[in-house]
Amino acid sequence: MIKIHFPDGAEREYAEGVSAMDIAKSISEGLARKVLAASVNGVVWDASRPINSDVSLKLLTWDDTDGKSTFWHSSAHLMAEAVESMFPGVKFWVGPALDKGFYYDMDLGDKKLTEDDLLQLEKKMNELSKQQNVYVRKEISKNEAVSYFQEKGDQYKLDLLQNLADGEITFLHSGKFHGSLPWSTYSTYRFNKAIKLTSISGAYWKGDEKNKMLTRVYGVTFPSNKELEEYLVMLEEAKKRDHRKLGKELSIFTMDDDVGPGLPLWLPNGTIIIEELEKLAKETEQAAGYKRVVTPHIAKESMYLTSGHLPYYADSMYPPMELDGTKYYLKAMNCPHHHKIFAAEPKSYKDLPLRLAEYGTCYRYEQSGELFGLMRVRCLHMNDAHIYCTKEQFYQEFKAVNDMYLKYFKIFGIDKYVMRLSLHDPAKLGKKYVDEPELWKETEALVRDVLIRTNTPFVEVQDEAAFYGPKIDVQIWSAIGREFTLATNQVDFAQGRRFKLEYTNQENKPDTPLIIHRAPLGTHERFIGFLLEHYAGKFPLWLAPIQVKVLPISDKFLPYAQTISQELKNADIRAEVDDRNEKIGKKIRDTELLRVPYMLVVGEKEMNEGKVAIRRQGKGDTGTATIADFVSSAKSEIKERRAE
Amino acid sequence: MIKIHFPDGAEREYAEGVSAMDIAKSISEGLARKVLAASVNGVVWDASRPINSDVSLKLLTWDDTDGKSTFWHSSAHLMAEAVESMFPGVKFWVGPALDKGFYYDMDLGDKKLTEDDLLQLEKKMNELSKQQNVYVRKEISKNEAVSYFQEKGDQYKLDLLQNLADGEITFLHSGKFHGSLPWSTYSTYRFNKAIKLTSISGAYWKGDEKNKMLTRVYGVTFPSNKELEEYLVMLEEAKKRDHRKLGKELSIFTMDDDVGPGLPLWLPNGTIIIEELEKLAKETEQAAGYKRVVTPHIAKESMYLTSGHLPYYADSMYPPMELDGTKYYLKAMNCPHHHKIFAAEPKSYKDLPLRLAEYGTCYRYEQSGELFGLMRVRCLHMNDAHIYCTKEQFYQEFKAVNDMYLKYFKIFGIDKYVMRLSLHDPAKLGKKYVDEPELWKETEALVRDVLIRTNTPFVEVQDEAAFYGPKIDVQIWSAIGREFTLATNQVDFAQGRRFKLEYTNQENKPDTPLIIHRAPLGTHERFIGFLLEHYAGKFPLWLAPIQVKVLPISDKFLPYAQTISQELKNADIRAEVDDRNEKIGKKIRDTELLRVPYMLVVGEKEMNEGKVAIRRQGKGDTGTATIADFVSSAKSEIKERRAE
Repeated sequence: MIKIHFPDGAEREYAEGVSAMDIAKSISEGLARKVLAASVNGVVWDASRPINSDVSLKLLTWDDTDGKSTFWHSSAHLMAEAVESMFPGVKFWVGPALDKGFYYDMDLGDKKLTEDDLLQLEKKMNELSKQQNVYVRKEISKNEAVSYFQEKGDQYKLDLLQNLADGEITFLHSGKFHGSLPWSTYSTYRFNKAIKLTSISGAYWKGDEKNKMLTRVYGVTFPSNKELEEYLVMLEEAKKRDHRKLGKELSIFTMDDDVGPGLPLWLPNGTIIIEELEKLAKETEQAAGYKRVVTPHIAKESMYLTSGHLPYYADSMYPPMELDGTKYYLKAMNCPHHHKIFAAEPKSYKDLPLRLAEYGTCYRYEQSGELFGLMRVRCLHMNDAHIYCTKEQFYQEFKAVNDMYLKYFKIFGIDKYVMRLSLHDPAKLGKKYVDEPELWKETEALVRDVLIRTNTPFVEVQDEAAFYGPKIDVQIWSAIGREFTLATNQVDFAQGRRFKLEYTNQENKPDTPLIIHRAPLGTHERFIGFLLEHYAGKFPLWLAPIQVKVLPISDKFLPYAQTISQELKNADIRAEVDDRNEKIGKKIRDTELLRVPYMLVVGEKEMNEGKVAIRRQGKGDTGTATIADFVSSAKSEIKERRAE
Repeated sequence: MIKIHFPDGAEREYAEGVSAMDIAKSISEGLARKVLAASVNGVVWDASRPINSDVSLKLLTWDDTDGKSTFWHSSAHLMAEAVESMFPGVKFWVGPALDKGFYYDMDLGDKKLTEDDLLQLEKKMNELSKQQNVYVRKEISKNEAVSYFQEKGDQYKLDLLQNLADGEITFLHSGKFHGSLPWSTYSTYRFNKAIKLTSISGAYWKGDEKNKMLTRVYGVTFPSNKELEEYLVMLEEAKKRDHRKLGKELSIFTMDDDVGPGLPLWLPNGTIIIEELEKLAKETEQAAGYKRVVTPHIAKESMYLTSGHLPYYADSMYPPMELDGTKYYLKAMNCPHHHKIFAAEPKSYKDLPLRLAEYGTCYRYEQSGELFGLMRVRCLHMNDAHIYCTKEQFYQEFKAVNDMYLKYFKIFGIDKYVMRLSLHDPAKLGKKYVDEPELWKETEALVRDVLIRTNTPFVEVQDEAAFYGPKIDVQIWSAIGREFTLATNQVDFAQGRRFKLEYTNQENKPDTPLIIHRAPLGTHERFIGFLLEHYAGKFPLWLAPIQVKVLPISDKFLPYAQTISQELKNADIRAEVDDRNEKIGKKIRDTELLRVPYMLVVGEKEMNEGKVAIRRQGKGDTGTATIADFVSSAKSEIKERRAE
């Protein structure tokens, strides 16, 4: 008999060779129907694999990231099986699960896949899925595996086998198709009824453009058709809301080959949004007692050796510039510069908490293949701040930061969010984590306490802390349900010491401050990319690049329109006049396309009465008002940063 | 007989061998007493040198930069003569004129000069000056000169002679001392009655630290004692107002070895000033129809090859970073990035003038020896903008920029300023200057016209334009009369074409815009450095990092003080409470040192009446007021950016 430990602390005995699926069934049939894989001593296993010793076991379902991932991995396998049955002789490279769905890279010889082929493949997958074949797992020697694929003439799998040793190789097969990776985990087929193959693209073998171009087929599957349909609707909506498309249509940003990849140039409209966000941060941070600083974008190598960015973070930094025999680096983070400001003048406990804020621009190297619009860039305008405090002040400071996150979520109508509290692993103290067991326990408890007491939804994740302290990763969902990760909120025991930061405590002795790193609005780049999707380009009034467009019905009313526009500008409202010689219908349609929140239509009646006819973006006519009344209501909408 | 042409167009005949001094005397004795040197065909000559052919002649006096420079050069010579008479065996390196005064580098063997030696030297210089020896100019062969200094054992002058050829060498001597440089120009001694040797320092021979350390003596001379005294007072005042000293005392900025030389870190107080200046610029530019943009700090080599920064400006740029096989450079100017924004979307004449503004941070390489506080830095936050306009719009746009300069001068109480209009030289078209003779004439006339019509004081300088168009360099004087150069206002014909910038003109044809480069507030670095001296750290209310300090007479009134402080903060006034347990006298003195504009003293009486006793920085008591009245008057002082 072997002992199985469950996450809730329970322990049960089973016969050797029992599988996770057997165990699930022993608990309830309902549970078994949901099980996709299992976490065995922290490693993901397929649910049918025999367990031969005492282990900790977690059953994984669709609600677990690893459960989903296993599900999609098996869908990739299912797709491969369908491909092989339709196109005999196909050779496969790899077919991993993605954040959402899966793909498989394959060599189809001269065959070019069509949209129609995808439909046929979906059909075939459904057919195979209904057969409910279970994967058979078989340990195999390297020699046998090599012979098998040599016979098949499959140079791709042979290439994969090169890096594997005897004892690491298992075949997993169902029907005629063989997967062959040691780390492969598969669920059974039975959930794979909602199948959608989404796209075909080319991908160089091993990502190297000198190699052959393989065919990559992307797909996604769900446990139910309802979920698939919802996903496809979201995808369609996301396409309409694509921040690169909207960014161009609304003249938010541009990219230029001579400037470089991942380095957006912000056009006037985008700059307005940047400045409104920065103004919000400035006001909020000022009210919360932050002080602003300005630091250069470069520093000497010596600073990054002190901080530890060199050599540990070097791959994510731009290469150095060599000047007067010294290496200078573009900053990838603002913290070291802020630490230098902390250290510039002597500090006492009376100076703490010291909160230094800067919309610092950092530069990080991302592989050019990973760059994506505003979401993955090399130039980051970061809503950064560092809070230097005593241990006694920590709870209050961390709570205040958390409150700031929640305040922002409210302003931006972010209803769904989760904070991932990343904790250390006590077994890795002194290796992966700073060896301060008490400080870890203390701050983790404090952070958890903040989250609980403020009713903030959160999940705990073991062994994902920063090396210098626990952190919170913030995940938010856009209006159409897509997930984004914002920057983190981190506690830091280590940098203070590395930089020899000191303050004189109440006992008149030197002490090292705790540091909180926080960036609630993340970077301008990612946040504006998120907002473009979230609002579908229809920014709330306070953020809209053009807030009001005045539309004269004909040229006769142009002077009146211009008077109104000037009055709006005098009241700090961003206004423009549509002075084109066009029909009012066209003016309205074009202004709708620009997602301008308010249109003021003016003709004979409005001019005579000193009024404006108001159209609200997406709502149509909302009546007339005097100019003064409109200005006053628009101003309060802006001031309160109302959603509408 | 030879013909002499004068600047006013007059022409006179003189005997060959006549000197500038002879000519001055022939005009008037009064003029002759003022003449220090002469510009002969544009080259500076000493006034006693014989003229042997037809020339253009300008007599140089104390009012001419070259006149002053000649005067100081001869003072250096006079000082050397005094040094040689007091310390026989001294060897001299070079002794040039400076912007203000002169120095001489000398090898005094083991002798260390003292303050007292300087006094003795001044005495000796006065004595020699009274002898009114005139310099005797003597052409000498290289051999003779070399023998002379070999005999003297003077390796320094021998080193200088190495680079000179026969026929280039003249000795100038008066008494026993010989100067020996071909380009040396000396005035007579007779004005040198106001003499001050200001300081002694060490200087490596040829600036190379591997060489011997020479003694450098600085001095300054004036035509009258009155001028010298005024200068010394100014110097004393400038020392008190030294921006590096005030920058430290008022916690404006700091430098850090690990960040790098010339890269200031702006502390919270300095950041407030930066942000107030930027706010001023933003408001002013917004009212003037500018649009703001944000661009990265780096770009690919290809962009700087297009702009011509590479290779022509490469020495002033940071070295490249090599990434993915491409060189990236830190930007030294914002223009190329702005041009890319112009080009990002198609433009028509209706889009012009397009005014793109950015407080862009640029990086320029300055030799580390030339770095000086905030005045010469490597990181520059520039109040930059580029105006793209048609030829027809140019006059109006350039005038508007000029008006903006004048507006700023008024706000900052800059009463003395001069604009240097730098023109092209028609002889150098196609070489030093873009070959567009008509465009040059046209825009120079337009620029001159703007300056004349707006009554702006200006001087014209030939052959100092940018290669792409005429420019205006702005010189301003601080409150204590020191001169500073602010950034330029330039017209640009060339970059538009290099970047293939186009707009569709009214004839529906492609056309290239003119570009105005302008930066009225220069860089934050230099401008804040200037303001620190200009205001002696006593910033006007709107710029002051701490605007109001509330001083409770004793702890009893601390809660009342805090209420006041909160009310001030609610009204966006930067306020602090002096909550130390100190006597009110000390609180007032310490607050004076921090140059806080307003102190509000509160005690029993003030608390009972709901009032505050107001002290204005530098003015003492100015009566009491209710909190509401004080807030309202302070707010209007801030809003109007009043000097006081």
